[in-house]
Amino acid sequence: MMRRYQVRFGHFDDARREYVIDRPDTPLPWINYLGSEAYFGLVSNTAGGYSFYRDARLRRLTRYRYNNAPFDLGGRYLYVRDDATGDYWTPSWQPTQRDLDEYECRHGLSYTTIASARGGIRAETLFFVPLGETLEVWRVRVTNERDTAADLSLFSSVEFCLWDAQDDATNFQRNFSTGQVEVADGVIYHKTEYRERRDHFAYFACSEPLAGFDTQRDTFLGAYRGWDRPAAVERGAAFDSVAHGWAPMGSHHVKLALEPGETREVVFVLGYAENPRAEKFDPPGSQTLNKRHVRPTIERWLRPETVAEGFAALGAHWERLLGGFQVATPDTDTDRMVNIWNAYQCMVTFNMSRSASFYESGIGRGMGFRDSNQDLVGFVHIIPERARERILDIAATQMDTGGAYHQYQPLTKRGNNDIGQGFNDDPLWLILGVAAYLKETGDTSILDEPVPFDNVPGSEVPLYEHLRRSLNYTRERLGPHGLPLIGRADWNDCLNLNCFSDTPGEPFQTTENATGGSAESVFIAGQFVLAAKELAGIADLRGLGDEAAEYRAAAEKMTGTVTEHGWDGGWFRRAYDFHGRPVGSGENDEGQIFIEPQGMCVLGGVGLDDGLAVRALDSVAERLATPHGIVLQQPAYSDYRIELGEISSYPPGYKENAGIFCHTNPWIMIAETMVGNGDRAFDYYRRINPSVREAISEVHRCEPYVYPQMIAGRDAPTHGEAKNSWLTGTAAWNFVAITQWILGIRPELTGLRIDPVLPAAWSGFRATRAYRGATYEITVQKPAGVTGRVTHLLVDGERVDGTLLPVAPAGAVVRVEAVVTGPAD
Amino acid sequence: MMRRYQVRFGHFDDARREYVIDRPDTPLPWINYLGSEAYFGLVSNTAGGYSFYRDARLRRLTRYRYNNAPFDLGGRYLYVRDDATGDYWTPSWQPTQRDLDEYECRHGLSYTTIASARGGIRAETLFFVPLGETLEVWRVRVTNERDTAADLSLFSSVEFCLWDAQDDATNFQRNFSTGQVEVADGVIYHKTEYRERRDHFAYFACSEPLAGFDTQRDTFLGAYRGWDRPAAVERGAAFDSVAHGWAPMGSHHVKLALEPGETREVVFVLGYAENPRAEKFDPPGSQTLNKRHVRPTIERWLRPETVAEGFAALGAHWERLLGGFQVATPDTDTDRMVNIWNAYQCMVTFNMSRSASFYESGIGRGMGFRDSNQDLVGFVHIIPERARERILDIAATQMDTGGAYHQYQPLTKRGNNDIGQGFNDDPLWLILGVAAYLKETGDTSILDEPVPFDNVPGSEVPLYEHLRRSLNYTRERLGPHGLPLIGRADWNDCLNLNCFSDTPGEPFQTTENATGGSAESVFIAGQFVLAAKELAGIADLRGLGDEAAEYRAAAEKMTGTVTEHGWDGGWFRRAYDFHGRPVGSGENDEGQIFIEPQGMCVLGGVGLDDGLAVRALDSVAERLATPHGIVLQQPAYSDYRIELGEISSYPPGYKENAGIFCHTNPWIMIAETMVGNGDRAFDYYRRINPSVREAISEVHRCEPYVYPQMIAGRDAPTHGEAKNSWLTGTAAWNFVAITQWILGIRPELTGLRIDPVLPAAWSGFRATRAYRGATYEITVQKPAGVTGRVTHLLVDGERVDGTLLPVAPAGAVVRVEAVVTGPAD
Repeated sequence: MMRRYQVRFGHFDDARREYVIDRPDTPLPWINYLGSEAYFGLVSNTAGGYSFYRDARLRRLTRYRYNNAPFDLGGRYLYVRDDATGDYWTPSWQPTQRDLDEYECRHGLSYTTIASARGGIRAETLFFVPLGETLEVWRVRVTNERDTAADLSLFSSVEFCLWDAQDDATNFQRNFSTGQVEVADGVIYHKTEYRERRDHFAYFACSEPLAGFDTQRDTFLGAYRGWDRPAAVERGAAFDSVAHGWAPMGSHHVKLALEPGETREVVFVLGYAENPRAEKFDPPGSQTLNKRHVRPTIERWLRPETVAEGFAALGAHWERLLGGFQVATPDTDTDRMVNIWNAYQCMVTFNMSRSASFYESGIGRGMGFRDSNQDLVGFVHIIPERARERILDIAATQMDTGGAYHQYQPLTKRGNNDIGQGFNDDPLWLILGVAAYLKETGDTSILDEPVPFDNVPGSEVPLYEHLRRSLNYTRERLGPHGLPLIGRADWNDCLNLNCFSDTPGEPFQTTENATGGSAESVFIAGQFVLAAKELAGIADLRGLGDEAAEYRAAAEKMTGTVTEHGWDGGWFRRAYDFHGRPVGSGENDEGQIFIEPQGMCVLGGVGLDDGLAVRALDSVAERLATPHGIVLQQPAYSDYRIELGEISSYPPGYKENAGIFCHTNPWIMIAETMVGNGDRAFDYYRRINPSVREAISEVHRCEPYVYPQMIAGRDAPTHGEAKNSWLTGTAAWNFVAITQWILGIRPELTGLRIDPVLPAAWSGFRATRAYRGATYEITVQKPAGVTGRVTHLLVDGERVDGTLLPVAPAGAVVRVEAVVTGPAD
Repeated sequence: MMRRYQVRFGHFDDARREYVIDRPDTPLPWINYLGSEAYFGLVSNTAGGYSFYRDARLRRLTRYRYNNAPFDLGGRYLYVRDDATGDYWTPSWQPTQRDLDEYECRHGLSYTTIASARGGIRAETLFFVPLGETLEVWRVRVTNERDTAADLSLFSSVEFCLWDAQDDATNFQRNFSTGQVEVADGVIYHKTEYRERRDHFAYFACSEPLAGFDTQRDTFLGAYRGWDRPAAVERGAAFDSVAHGWAPMGSHHVKLALEPGETREVVFVLGYAENPRAEKFDPPGSQTLNKRHVRPTIERWLRPETVAEGFAALGAHWERLLGGFQVATPDTDTDRMVNIWNAYQCMVTFNMSRSASFYESGIGRGMGFRDSNQDLVGFVHIIPERARERILDIAATQMDTGGAYHQYQPLTKRGNNDIGQGFNDDPLWLILGVAAYLKETGDTSILDEPVPFDNVPGSEVPLYEHLRRSLNYTRERLGPHGLPLIGRADWNDCLNLNCFSDTPGEPFQTTENATGGSAESVFIAGQFVLAAKELAGIADLRGLGDEAAEYRAAAEKMTGTVTEHGWDGGWFRRAYDFHGRPVGSGENDEGQIFIEPQGMCVLGGVGLDDGLAVRALDSVAERLATPHGIVLQQPAYSDYRIELGEISSYPPGYKENAGIFCHTNPWIMIAETMVGNGDRAFDYYRRINPSVREAISEVHRCEPYVYPQMIAGRDAPTHGEAKNSWLTGTAAWNFVAITQWILGIRPELTGLRIDPVLPAAWSGFRATRAYRGATYEITVQKPAGVTGRVTHLLVDGERVDGTLLPVAPAGAVVRVEAVVTGPAD
């Protein structure tokens, strides 16, 4: 299939909550995620990807080769062979890339189907992870659409990873000698290192009687062959190979004789299991894997009715998750992102943090302290109980100084010493995360939960005390201008003002900081104002009025400091460097204006009263906004600046060096709503909305259903090209921007506010929102062309002044009407 | 080309010192090494492999994908295209795998040629790294053997690695945005991160005018294509792509119009260069790579005459290196290994240690303290000056306790904290390495060289003091039986008697050791006896007779301890475990006998007087010897034993768990010569001699010209299959076993000994040996069928009693005749 660019490579099927990919050769692999609890998988539109249990590095089930050529190799590959002619192909197109007469991939919510046909043989495969299980199901339906009988072979294949993905890819002098499998009753068990310290194994089973199997990759493929032409498939017979070392894999060979019009369903199950240590072997004393515990699970999931029920349950699960918040606006792109894809992406960030995507190899990063607090604002309304648990996990990695590990390990929940501490914005994010949780749930009991410092037993204090220390951490670390010290970095991990690295490859975030100077962050200052006000509100909830007043005073004071030292004349400065020189100022030759402080200062309320906010936002519009989104700073740094760090290590227009770092864009959208500019807010929203950008898929290249971390900025030759899709704080913040600030359905500590700031052209919208147990059916009316705000609500027909909904009893269904009034546009 | 096993896949061309591979689809990639100073490359028989500058992890020039399918992808690929028909192929077979009418790869000493023909077009490529340069040359000769003119395109290709091979393979969220190149005057410059902290870059140049070029991999290949069918080659025209991010690569497109019979030579040069920091850019202040310094080098090496001279110089270099020691024996396999391949492999271990091979991914390991000392005994006679430097580097990583880092970093020469210390055999290897150096060179000045501890300036003491501390390190660390404590491990890194690891994936060598017990090593005891005697000899050289006597007494005492507590009745025990239980004893259910102490104790002289040595060696023959070599222990451990560690983590028959760990086999060969059993010594020698095993290449699978680390033992289903070729101490020790002990040409502190212990069937041999500046032309005569020893020598016709040659003046050429006398077999 020769590559020709076209505008779209698929379309949205909103009714089924699916993105439908019409051709396999998308500009980049367009992926989806399977699993939502402990067993996870990535799957691309051509069946590429891999699976893991909990930890993408340490419990990798299947092998994937990042950055290979062809891209996206390693996956869940099925081969169909016409045994009469020897013709064979992969219904997922990859890896054989044989022409398909039809092809359709549907990425849904935690499942993917790939359907295709060649020569009158149709194959449709559904991939999903059943709830409550640590396995994935491949349900394959093969249909003979010919008018003659067909003798077919179906081969499955996965290549096993030897568990630790990092070691697996580097330690060959050991790993080529350790691989072990068992094949029993048609089930392939991958048990490398099970003989020694592992008590876990993988299994790969098939619902049909086997004509054969393979477990040694290079036997199945044949010497010097790739996945595009396995020898077993080519000859039409498995080798029944048993792997001893080298590369264990799993392949079943099933023969299918299909009458014209006949469909056969074959189920494959790939799973992960653990045995109790004392029961690893059966019989005891042998080296034979104990299969007693896992066999019933395998047998159950090979049954078509179990699969059908499991898939239905998954659908019901997502209906429950998403049904609590649905909107109907004049804008289709808004609706499908809010109702389906943006919420879905938020849930994926909950599951994955930044660990495993097409750009995150799954071996490098733990859970980010800052990342997870931000992700939380996107999923707290969907899974409040798990958000609660996540908050307590995060807070337990905080130090008694209020400082925090920048990352923690998902398996141990311990702080990660490799990356360390000293990212001085981190503690404040905990306040913002907890505030979001409280606003959504009203569950103030979390504030009294005993939470240790650095996970040290006995050090527990109430969570509320953690929040106090978070705020104090900043207050105790102010620089010469009274602005917060930046430490290793603030939100922008790549603005490293104390690092001064001149050694190639040295990590900017962990290299020992220089001493003697004191770099300060205006961003953290803005964030502090916001966090102090949030904590004041929380203190009020606890009846701590004096403390609340103190926090508000601190916020006020910092607001003054920002106004005095953080304002550059037309926008907020970014920082002061190690030597006290401004960063993000007209005084600079490059990097004169940064997006982050314009957003965060306004979010904190700085400049709302005195016009600075409007001026800053106008500067953003003038200097940073592009048709593809708002770039991080301008002008881009054309050379490396040792006093700024990693930001200037990127070529201009990429990543932090004046790329469109999408995470920051919703801050500006929110700020625009705060100054009442709904048109500009919504315009920005649409510039990076992936559904909108679907129309330029040949430019955007990444998936049109989820946000990327970055779109190349105007200084890049590839301006408009997205990278690093899926795992980004962009998801959470855009969800907040569109739902809470543009649509204006905003949880607050005391209830749900309805305060939309809409584009003039809109004529209102409707929404259903579950909130603290009640369901609100919301209608916002607005004459098209009018800009303005809601001044009062009708709640079940009763007028309520202002925009704050009274909290309804759990189980109630409340009809809310709001009218936007204001001047015509 | 369908794979059919055959016995051989090539043949030796001893006259040219080449191994000639006759078909591309060898059982595994059969590789060679380019470079011998700072710039290195691996190259397989199908042009797979990669290049690096000094450090295979941190300065990786080109990208290679280990354990890919097909195996061995990433390399120095040329494509020839017949522009009249569009037919294209790779003369190296990979990656297109198009059928070739002829194919021949010749691996020579630091160079490789791959020649092939298809459709009347012949292409022969020579790859080598010129002496004194940090670049590699590809000299391509394309010949039109048709009787009509041919219009051809030639495309080159390399894929650049973004320098740090580990980061390159994992950190995609950054690395997909950093790639940068320049193309100027037909030269492709890879300069990723040069804009920031790097002052080095790669270049790829071509001697011919270009029809086009490519630098972006996925443009050159086309979307979803691999190296087997690049879009640029398929269409016959490069895209002139300039990489911005993603995957920078280099490809030149050259058009060749060849008359019938015409040959054209095209030279490609791939190199590494650094610029002074102050002169990185040209013009200064720009971001344009300064090419002034490198351009003359590029121009020079694109000239055919430079290439011819450089290749001739490389040949002369190897003639110098190898010419100093050549033998002519009745056994061709012995001759070619001693004269060519074993010596060559020793030189490769000098260059690579254990860093980069087809099994060592180049990112995991530094220079081993123990490894390097052992490698040294294989190359000290070839490059004594560099051996001297290596010794001083190693010794400088020793601690003042006498202990040593187990590894040190090749770039910094600092001890590696990741792997740490506590391998209690390490210090003794320093004595053995220095002894080997002194025996070869007589250069006692090295003993007075000031050498620091742990590289701390000011801590220098004479090297001799390091040796004292090495010996004392053992003496001060004895266990309850008076045997040396084993620490983390002794020579066998996988016998971890203090580790007790039950956590999956936990490294056995770095996990904190248990305390309270005291595991002891019989192996170190034997090694101590050997080292103490060697140090005594060195002390004598320094006139320290008392000290020498003390060391000999210590050796004697330890010999008694071994005899008392290390003897199991029929063989030497291996160790005592943490709880004081014997390991490698008839008392054990498995692991009853280990090879290592049988070799090392006898090497130390233990058991030579009282018959224990003979009994131990008979036990080896009876219990451990297989037709494929001698296994490490028997019976193999069938299950994991937490008290033994990694050794039992391998499936039976692999690696340390009863694999044929080839490194240990020459110890037994030497021991057999020490008890006068030349037949058995030589029999063992031939069992693992790769040249002998060439005849069973379909079983052995690894290269037939170099030793592997391991051959699967009798407990493995793949018994006889080799793994981990090239980088192994096997090379050095086998060279010592055959040359010093079987052929008996053995350097000693006081001169060269001629004391062969030959197989009965031999009728003598001849040798040329350079030694301390003189050249000895040695003839050993022996009636076939006789076993016995040399009793006296004829030196230039003069009788010398005994077997020690008087040291001749430098420059002298000495004729030596020796006669073996003894009983008929």
